[in-house]
Amino acid sequence: MPEIILSINSGSSSVKISVYLANGSGDPTQLAEAVIEGLTAPPATLKYQRGDEKIKGKEIQEIGSQEDAFRWILEYLTNDKGLPELEKKEDIHFTCHRVVHGGDYPRSQVIDEDTYHHIEALSDLAPLHNGPALAIVKAASELLPHATNVAYFDSSFHATMPPQICTYPIDQTIAKKNKLRKYGFHGISYSFIVHAVSEYLQKPASDLNIIALHLGSGASACCIASGHSMDTSMGLTPLAGLPGATRSGSIDPSLMFHFTHSAGAPSRSSSSKLHITEAEEILNKNSGWKSLTGTTNFGEISEKASQGDEACKLAFDIFVDRIGNYVAPYFCKLGGKVDALVFAGGIGERGDKLRSAVVRNVECLGFGVDEERNRKLGNEVVTDITREGARYKTLIVKTDEQLEMARGVLEERERFGRE
Amino acid sequence: MPEIILSINSGSSSVKISVYLANGSGDPTQLAEAVIEGLTAPPATLKYQRGDEKIKGKEIQEIGSQEDAFRWILEYLTNDKGLPELEKKEDIHFTCHRVVHGGDYPRSQVIDEDTYHHIEALSDLAPLHNGPALAIVKAASELLPHATNVAYFDSSFHATMPPQICTYPIDQTIAKKNKLRKYGFHGISYSFIVHAVSEYLQKPASDLNIIALHLGSGASACCIASGHSMDTSMGLTPLAGLPGATRSGSIDPSLMFHFTHSAGAPSRSSSSKLHITEAEEILNKNSGWKSLTGTTNFGEISEKASQGDEACKLAFDIFVDRIGNYVAPYFCKLGGKVDALVFAGGIGERGDKLRSAVVRNVECLGFGVDEERNRKLGNEVVTDITREGARYKTLIVKTDEQLEMARGVLEERERFGRE
Repeated sequence: MPEIILSINSGSSSVKISVYLANGSGDPTQLAEAVIEGLTAPPATLKYQRGDEKIKGKEIQEIGSQEDAFRWILEYLTNDKGLPELEKKEDIHFTCHRVVHGGDYPRSQVIDEDTYHHIEALSDLAPLHNGPALAIVKAASELLPHATNVAYFDSSFHATMPPQICTYPIDQTIAKKNKLRKYGFHGISYSFIVHAVSEYLQKPASDLNIIALHLGSGASACCIASGHSMDTSMGLTPLAGLPGATRSGSIDPSLMFHFTHSAGAPSRSSSSKLHITEAEEILNKNSGWKSLTGTTNFGEISEKASQGDEACKLAFDIFVDRIGNYVAPYFCKLGGKVDALVFAGGIGERGDKLRSAVVRNVECLGFGVDEERNRKLGNEVVTDITREGARYKTLIVKTDEQLEMARGVLEERERFGRE
Repeated sequence: MPEIILSINSGSSSVKISVYLANGSGDPTQLAEAVIEGLTAPPATLKYQRGDEKIKGKEIQEIGSQEDAFRWILEYLTNDKGLPELEKKEDIHFTCHRVVHGGDYPRSQVIDEDTYHHIEALSDLAPLHNGPALAIVKAASELLPHATNVAYFDSSFHATMPPQICTYPIDQTIAKKNKLRKYGFHGISYSFIVHAVSEYLQKPASDLNIIALHLGSGASACCIASGHSMDTSMGLTPLAGLPGATRSGSIDPSLMFHFTHSAGAPSRSSSSKLHITEAEEILNKNSGWKSLTGTTNFGEISEKASQGDEACKLAFDIFVDRIGNYVAPYFCKLGGKVDALVFAGGIGERGDKLRSAVVRNVECLGFGVDEERNRKLGNEVVTDITREGARYKTLIVKTDEQLEMARGVLEERERFGRE
């Protein structure tokens, strides 16, 4: 009997579901991928791919929430005649849910009533980020009770950070009570990166030292020592560290009180269940390079910057500068023993100008990019763009969080009680 | 006629006044130094030194404010028979006031009504920090109308930071209106460091690349390129960057909203003239290593940490880690062309264990400390503690903000209209 795995990734206005077939002991095979976008700007649209079959921009009515989108895709998949492996819901053996904030969960968790409530409770720390996933986690438990529903946390990968890195120098009684520490995120992606680089360099993951950059509309850096996270740029929430499309990244902690007198007041997005202050909403949604340039599209910013647009140049230069503020210390934390500097994420993969500029700023450490290789990105999971003679490797990794979750669920089926 | 210069440095609970005699074209000579401490925990006490004459711990009654202390010291100095150069107020030609936040003032300013009001207005950005100086600035103008009263700003040295460093990626209309940018502080100390290292290395200041660490109960790092500030760890206010005795340093900008529900409410120290939120008060006054260990004394923390005390070890390790987060990127910003890594400030001068640990963490960049030299600190302004064979120099500089201001006022007497 074929075993189907769904990897589910929901953002604030989109839901992506990848369909995998378990494949003996090897990597699961992707059969299809469905994305519904525009949840916050209806009508929602569907993007669907199965083999050569492609649908793009198909409008779908009456989809107003992540849960709607999930139910719709589930119907769509079970009715797709070209997908005989998934004829009925019972064919789905596993669902994997990407959940941003997992508190102190050091690894993925099968979702039962207890876990669900625990995740719900700790989502107070990151309501803007966990909200979208939680609705689907609940729906999956109801619609697919026979399946093993597993939550993958972006924070788990960083559970190995030492105390001096993850402790904030604040009142420790309140810190412990309110669970205030550095958690870090993008961990599913960093886990994929470790596996990909391990295979590419033919070196065990546990021997790998990597400076990894996951750069997308949310961006972070990670110092990976012997395959484990030692430090990362995000903090208690994904707001800390690097700026993003609409996110400020780290700023003076007192800034918001000089930005608005109602920094601590509930924001418009707040509800009785969702507590978000004005400051958090502004810093997460109305800052970042959008606030500098008017666009969230970093490709456009990068292009315009090279043509001399001042605001775009400033946004580009700020991003390059802040990335350097993490690459260099991570180099030292690894004692200069670095297997690779890795670029991943939408901007990490497509931003050739950004990669050039970032690496130029750390050239004195022994990094260098071959400009020709840097511009021509192929379809490989790992692309080496190291300049000849550079002491350390620079790689681009096409990260795949969906696959990483599907892999994980098969590797750990014993722990999940599904042998 | 002898020209007397007073250098005045007031903190939240103390006032220090150094008395200098102008000395032709050379450095001014220090004649005496008076410090009144314990303003917030009466009775206040006096520390006084003139040549071999030393007074310590003398209790003084009815001193409740910085202004009281200033008036008292002024009386004391003019009545000190051993100080014939300062017999009457009119002997004072210059007063120099250390003011923390100077907004966008790129250099020191003679205080007149306009400047005073401008400084008062921009102090909204850092009421906790500018308050103590402002009262004395005002009193000096009234008591010493014949003198040239000059404000020296801790922020001015950093006026040379490029836009991509000092711009926060937030709404630019509000940022400009509310003057929200990175300013940086400890600039008078960094200016002294540049002069001291220039003299020590016999290299013009304009050729010097320095990674400077001013480490005291407030701590910051500065990247000095060609003698000018290129980046620094503090931000809009002194809160950002490194942790301090009672200061958190940089944390997730959303943390305080998960620490207390009244983050944005006025704190107990607030008044109609002084706007301080609960969050700012907690992060500036009740955090830092005091919140981790119960003491503000870093020497004690360092000692106990080496004896195995866990809380002290955590505080020590956090400080070392965060310092490295600035040293390494500054190394890259200088393209690896570094004349010296400099330790200054109370902890920078006395913390041999801290220096060892900080330098060990950046050893892979080419720094190294000679442990014997590191432990034996002499009386020189500059002490070289570089390990033989290390590629870059590591120096300790006994910084002297009082002297730096007195020097500045003499060097720039033309600009101040006092030739």
